[in-house]
Parts: sequence; C-alpha cells; structure tokens
Amino acid sequence: MEKWFLLTPGPTPVPSEVLLEMANPIIHHRTDEFKQIFKEVCEDIKYLFQTKNDVIILASSGTGAMEASISNLFNKGDKVLIIRAGKFGDRWGEIAESYELNPVYIDVEWGNPVNIDDVKFKLDENPDIKGIFTQASETSTGIKHPIKEIAELVRINENCLFIVDGITGVGVFDIKPDEWGIDVLISGSQKAFMLPPGLAFISLSEKAWEFAENSNLPKYYFDLKKERKNLKKGQTAYTPAVSLIIGLKKVLELVKKEGLENIFERNKKFAYATREAFKEIGLKIFNEKSPSEAVTAILLPESVDGQKLVKFLRDNYKISIAGGQEHLKGKIIRISHMGFISRFDLIVGVSAVEMALKEFGYKFEFGKATTKLMELLG
Amino acid sequence: MEKWFLLTPGPTPVPSEVLLEMANPIIHHRTDEFKQIFKEVCEDIKYLFQTKNDVIILASSGTGAMEASISNLFNKGDKVLIIRAGKFGDRWGEIAESYELNPVYIDVEWGNPVNIDDVKFKLDENPDIKGIFTQASETSTGIKHPIKEIAELVRINENCLFIVDGITGVGVFDIKPDEWGIDVLISGSQKAFMLPPGLAFISLSEKAWEFAENSNLPKYYFDLKKERKNLKKGQTAYTPAVSLIIGLKKVLELVKKEGLENIFERNKKFAYATREAFKEIGLKIFNEKSPSEAVTAILLPESVDGQKLVKFLRDNYKISIAGGQEHLKGKIIRISHMGFISRFDLIVGVSAVEMALKEFGYKFEFGKATTKLMELLG
Repeated sequence: MEKWFLLTPGPTPVPSEVLLEMANPIIHHRTDEFKQIFKEVCEDIKYLFQTKNDVIILASSGTGAMEASISNLFNKGDKVLIIRAGKFGDRWGEIAESYELNPVYIDVEWGNPVNIDDVKFKLDENPDIKGIFTQASETSTGIKHPIKEIAELVRINENCLFIVDGITGVGVFDIKPDEWGIDVLISGSQKAFMLPPGLAFISLSEKAWEFAENSNLPKYYFDLKKERKNLKKGQTAYTPAVSLIIGLKKVLELVKKEGLENIFERNKKFAYATREAFKEIGLKIFNEKSPSEAVTAILLPESVDGQKLVKFLRDNYKISIAGGQEHLKGKIIRISHMGFISRFDLIVGVSAVEMALKEFGYKFEFGKATTKLMELLG
Repeated sequence: MEKWFLLTPGPTPVPSEVLLEMANPIIHHRTDEFKQIFKEVCEDIKYLFQTKNDVIILASSGTGAMEASISNLFNKGDKVLIIRAGKFGDRWGEIAESYELNPVYIDVEWGNPVNIDDVKFKLDENPDIKGIFTQASETSTGIKHPIKEIAELVRINENCLFIVDGITGVGVFDIKPDEWGIDVLISGSQKAFMLPPGLAFISLSEKAWEFAENSNLPKYYFDLKKERKNLKKGQTAYTPAVSLIIGLKKVLELVKKEGLENIFERNKKFAYATREAFKEIGLKIFNEKSPSEAVTAILLPESVDGQKLVKFLRDNYKISIAGGQEHLKGKIIRISHMGFISRFDLIVGVSAVEMALKEFGYKFEFGKATTKLMELLG
C-alpha cells in the first residue's frame, strides 16, 4: 500500500485545511455572503502579488490570463518582443501570432536565462516595440529570467508594456511589480497558491489599463475591463469558480501567517539543497545558471531514459515528478519545491530518484544525495 | 510549512478513500440500509480475523473488549494466568483484579517475549487455571509472544481459555485463532485497521461462548451474548459508531484487495528494514529478541533523552513517533510500520530521527540509516 507524493511543478499538493474549506456546501455567487468573501480575497491577494493594483481573478488556467494580456492590451500588427527560452516562452509566441501581432523573438538556448544585453539590443533596434513578454520562471527548464533588470529597460518607455508570466513565480520568489515596473503580472492557482487548477490571476498597472482603452482585438470571456468593473462591485462578470475562491481565502490566510519573506527563504533553501543533493551523486543541474526556486531540473546520465524513470517512479513508488518537454523529453527530470511541500517531501523525492537510478543501472555512491539533503535541511 | 507524518503505533494514518467514505452523510443505524452494510462488514471482518466465528464489533477502544473478555467469561475468584511483559500485560492484571479474579502472573523482563517453558511450568503448577491472558504483540516494548505455542498448551484443556489481545497483532502478522486454538481474539480500529480510534473487535470460540453461559460477573454495555444475538439480526445492542462502520467497510475492501499474505509480507519487510537501518548507526534494537511487525523499539544512546527527542520531532518536523512508557520513558523510541504506512513514510521517519540525533549530539555516520533503509526497500 503506497501513498501518492506529488512533486510536479503544478499541480502541487493542496493542504488539508484548504481541501476541507472547499468541501463546504457550495454557496451561490450572487449573494452578499459570497460578495463579502470575494472582496476579502481580492484585497488579500494583493499581498501575495506585492501590488496595490487590482488583481483580476479568472476561472481559467494560467494560459487564459496570458491570452487576456494580449487580447486586452494590443492591436493587430503591434510589434512585440517575446523572450523564448522554453515551452512557455513559445506559448507567448503562439498566442501573439493567433491574434496577428507582429512578434520579434529572442531565442535563448533552453536551460539559460535571457541575456539582458540581448534585450537592450532588440529594444534599441526596434523602438516601436509595444510590449515585452517573458516568464519570471520558465517552468520547462527551471530557469529564472532577470525580470527586475528587464523592467528597468521598459519602465522609462511610455509606449511599451512589460508583461510577465509569473505562473511559477508569484509567491515562489520575490517579484515586485509596482516597485520594479512590471505592467502585467500573471499567475495560476495550481502552483505556489496551493490550490487545485482552475483559477488564473492577472494584475495590471495604470499604464496597462491605458493600453486597454485603445485595444480593439476581439475578446469576450477574458474582457478585463468588464471584470475590473465587476470587481469594484464585489463580483465577477461570469460565474466564478466558487469553491476555488473559498479555498483561496484559506490559502491567503496561511500565506499571511507564514509571511512572504519566510516562504521565499524556504523555497530558496529547498531549491539549493535539491541542487546540492543531486550534484553529490555526479549529476548536472540543468538550470544551474539561473535556478528558479520553483523547480529543479536535473540532467540525467545518457544511459538513463528520463521518460522511463518518471514512469517507474509513478508505477512503483507512486511518486509524481516531471520529465522534460519537447527536445528535453527523456533527458531531464524536474522536481518542484514550491507551495505545500515540506522538507520531508523532498527527502522522499530525492531518495526515490536515487532508488530508481540504482534500478536503472546508474553507478553512484548510493544514498549520498539523500544524506546531503538531510544535512542541508536538518 | 510542514506536513504531519504519523508513525505512532496507534493511531495510524487513515487512507483518503476511507476518510472520504466516512465523510458521507450519517445514516440511521436502525434502517435496512445500515443493516445491509453491517451484515457485510460482520461477514468480511472474519477474513481479517482469520476465523469462522462471529466477530463482535463494539463502540469502544480496545480496552473495552479486553474488559468484556473478563466480565463475560469468568467468575469472581477464578484463577487466571497473566503474562506481563509490558504496559498492556499490566492492563490485563488491572482488569482481572478489578473483577476480583485470582490472577497468577508471569513477569517477563520488558523487551523479552514470554518463555514457553515458564508458561508450561505455571500451568502444571496450577491445574485450576481457567484462562491465560497475553498480548500477541506487546506494543509498549515491540515484542511478539509465541502465541501459537501457548495455544498448543491450552487447547487440550477443556477448562481453560486462551485470551489474546491482538490489538497490534490482527492484520499485522499471521494469527490463526481457529487453527491454533485461540479462544478469544481482540483488536481495535486505530492500528492495522487503518481507522480512527473508536471500534473494538472481539471474536470468541465455541468453547469461550460456553464459558459465557456460566459467568456471573456484572456487565451491561459490554454484554457479548446480547451483542451476538443482535448481530444475528444485523444490528448492535446499543448505538453503533456508524461512520466508523462505514469506514470499516471500505477498509475491508482495501485489505481483501491487497490480500492478508501480502500485508504480512510487507510488514515483515518494513520491520526488518527499520531494524537494520538503526543498527547501521550503532543503535540497539530493544525488541530484537522477538520483534513484532507492528512496531520497532530502538534503544537510544544514554546521552540522548528520548522524551526530548520525540518532542523535537513533533515540534520541529511535525513527525509523530512514540517514546517509551513507564520505566522505559526517555530510553526508547518506537516507530510503527503497520497499517497505511508506505516505504517512504519510513524513509521520512528514519531520516528525521537521524537529523534529530545529530542535533542532539550523537556521533554517528550521518545518513547511513536512511541509506540502508533505501537499499532494503528499493
């Protein structure tokens, strides 16, 4: 009889307190009771987002909020700069192309962060760029981009917005949209928010709201101006995901109780310990150059098929970790440390990978990675 | 943010499937719906008890069933033999004395099983003994008594019953009451049954039911003859613990699905691996002489205060293990491997104890116990 351990970079485990809160009887969303809860949530989520601006809550996955940030703020033919350093950078490109924007790309080798000089160069070369799109943390490779530095390049330019997919960033490490000058910041419920998938979050600067006035792209469900108007009245334009909002209320209590600084510190410690653990048994850290605190990507020895390893962990140990995506399929594994993950979940994950690597014939000093982790997390 | 890991020898973790089943709306116990469930449960529990006899289900903790086995089967002044090898052996004595039986004791040094020759000697010396009381597994010290061998001494004697407290035995390791000749077998819900506390189980042989005809000790709530009569009608004499019975139905499904043999095999493997792990870092196994598959008792180095260690694990790691009881307080720790415990729960428990021992200044090769466990459980 095995228990499941979920160590994927989304969905992440949901604390019992939150699950139980969501198991309460569903209330109707057009009631004073729900309005009160929704108002509180909309206020409290600003703490997690580190912003004074409204945070719009959508019933969709994070991709919905990504799409909204394009369909609400731009026009056909607008030139935008997209940083592509992984699968989610690609997604910015796909959405921009769907809406017939005119994207310019910086293609970064997977496993690397964008070089700030490349961004500067592209901006100088294209003064008519109206938006820069990037990830705070590229989940497919585990790297972090220099968000603060990019923001500095954009904030002086009144005609350009800085849009950050912080899906595995918000609540994981420090991102200060107001202070740094991020115009649009996006996140999703199934990451550091410790909730099931189903909610997307998006906050906009005043500059971004001005762009919204001039956008004529088609939108209906993801109409942010309409949502903002409703938010002021304590409601959403369309039926909200009631139980997830109820869960979010509890999550925000837990987050405020622990404190953002402590959460960031913990994630940093967990990410560092996980990297050091795997290095101890001779493995390379794929995201070593600019590691995100959300997820550690480990390069496997050539003799080990990562897809089989991930399947082995699922089938034999009931442990969910992620493999690689696209051309990294089979080559890396990814272990998440964001959200409701305790040091002992990581010990479980790392020990299980060691046990599996042994089964797969990789030669190493068995137990060394786990011991290192125990040493660093004790 | 830490998660709780429960590794105490009762209560033990309850699987989500069972918790969810128990979260269903309460049904009334005098309905056909409940009767149907109760009948199924009473039939299926015989598989776990390895008996063809009725298993009476009481709404009480295991101690209630221990008391019932005395108040229902004996008379004031009856001479009984009680094996005392730990806190729960003592409890047999306390109950017997409360009902003014005439107990003869075999006192075994804690950490040892009873010597079968001592039992034989006492029985020869006291041919008028009407009952022998023991534990299958003495939870306070982690040892197993030679139940099968004792049963062989008693079964030929028509005037003597063999009563076994199998609270941490039934469903943990092989106990065959019908085949071996155990007249009364007792268990409780919060051990291998993977349920919250609140139910006690007791099965009686035909010989035991005959004794019940001649007992005149006072009883009301724990009147087994009355319960047996009700059981035949698919009900209990007094209000049953409805949600626990509903949970038990689910548990019995899970147990049948895994198969008793497989469960026993797993517990044996887990107990062996846990002992070997701690020996690897120089610690002595307190129950090494006759280890129960329910719990491993580890003798701590003199420099380490076990009570403080257990508290440290709770406060700092949110890991519950048990300390020692009575004169073993502070000297041993106990880690359970029965019920809904996965190999990774044990890795969590052992790694946490290593991390704590290091904090407490014990000198050892850090990580060796966990590595050994990973090796044996891979």
